[in-house]
Amino acid sequence: LVSFVGGSLGSWRIENMEPVRGEPIPVVDFLEVLEGSIGSIAPSARWVLRGTTSNERYATRREHDELVARQGTLGRPHATRAALIPVRKSAAWWELSQDERRAIFEDRSRHIAIGLEYLPAVARRLHHCRELPGEQFDFLTWFEYAPEHVDAFEALVRRLRSTEEWTYVEREIDIRLAFHGGLTRR
Amino acid sequence: LVSFVGGSLGSWRIENMEPVRGEPIPVVDFLEVLEGSIGSIAPSARWVLRGTTSNERYATRREHDELVARQGTLGRPHATRAALIPVRKSAAWWELSQDERRAIFEDRSRHIAIGLEYLPAVARRLHHCRELPGEQFDFLTWFEYAPEHVDAFEALVRRLRSTEEWTYVEREIDIRLAFHGGLTRR
Repeated sequence: LVSFVGGSLGSWRIENMEPVRGEPIPVVDFLEVLEGSIGSIAPSARWVLRGTTSNERYATRREHDELVARQGTLGRPHATRAALIPVRKSAAWWELSQDERRAIFEDRSRHIAIGLEYLPAVARRLHHCRELPGEQFDFLTWFEYAPEHVDAFEALVRRLRSTEEWTYVEREIDIRLAFHGGLTRR
Repeated sequence: LVSFVGGSLGSWRIENMEPVRGEPIPVVDFLEVLEGSIGSIAPSARWVLRGTTSNERYATRREHDELVARQGTLGRPHATRAALIPVRKSAAWWELSQDERRAIFEDRSRHIAIGLEYLPAVARRLHHCRELPGEQFDFLTWFEYAPEHVDAFEALVRRLRSTEEWTYVEREIDIRLAFHGGLTRR
């Protein structure tokens, strides 16, 4: 379980928060990423988005092995830019069967193939929250990259948003962050 | 979210609780099935297992449509027998990619095809709990059937337990119940 805590304190300074689709969430200045359960929320927190890392849902063994071979890890010292992109998909998406979702996700939208082009520059971790009580999104994706890869990251996001898969996204927030040297770096 | 509350009160009387594999859970006499969040646990409760209904993970559109066409609903007045089977699969299962899990689940273990043979006699609802904080199992499957289908249900369970898929099950409890006329029938 990972908690993304937005408020007036945190290791990451929020540079931009944009409601891409659907209802926004309150604008805050800082974000902290906490792993494990958090017993009580600090008074500095305005909101908490929670998600869990989990098993992969669409990648084949071949795709998985290629991702693992090429991906970067989180917490690299030079990767001082980050993005947190909470997304909720529509009921129509979730009513599709597994083969239909896979066909849209990869055969037609090339989600994995597009992502592979940006490895290892853009490190990524997906968190699931569709089954967590009280959560408003289905996924929280966290990305980390160096300042020189800001344009590449913009291209990645733009390409994914133009896919057939994205027509099923009914709510999306785009939060961009810069590491400002908090107490901890994972 | 659905909560299965075991204790000294409940609409379902527990007739048998068998730890099929791994650590057991405390033996209790009654079970209540509650939908939605439960604010506080009654003093009569000994344990609570929680899970969420969710999207399908392996069925193709053809399989899904066949399941929907043939399945029975929960809460049928004559279906006074039930089973709750909490299962946890191994880390090895969850590290498999989607195509590998699908191949074991259906191509080789015929999980969907076997289940279809027992429709509509055995009604079934799957609850996911792998991503719920604090839960001990990955799935809670709830089955309802009439007394005359007890033997058919035994056959169904025996066949599934003999599959390759089941070699990945590291914890399983088999709880059998009889409806005894509580305050509510869903």
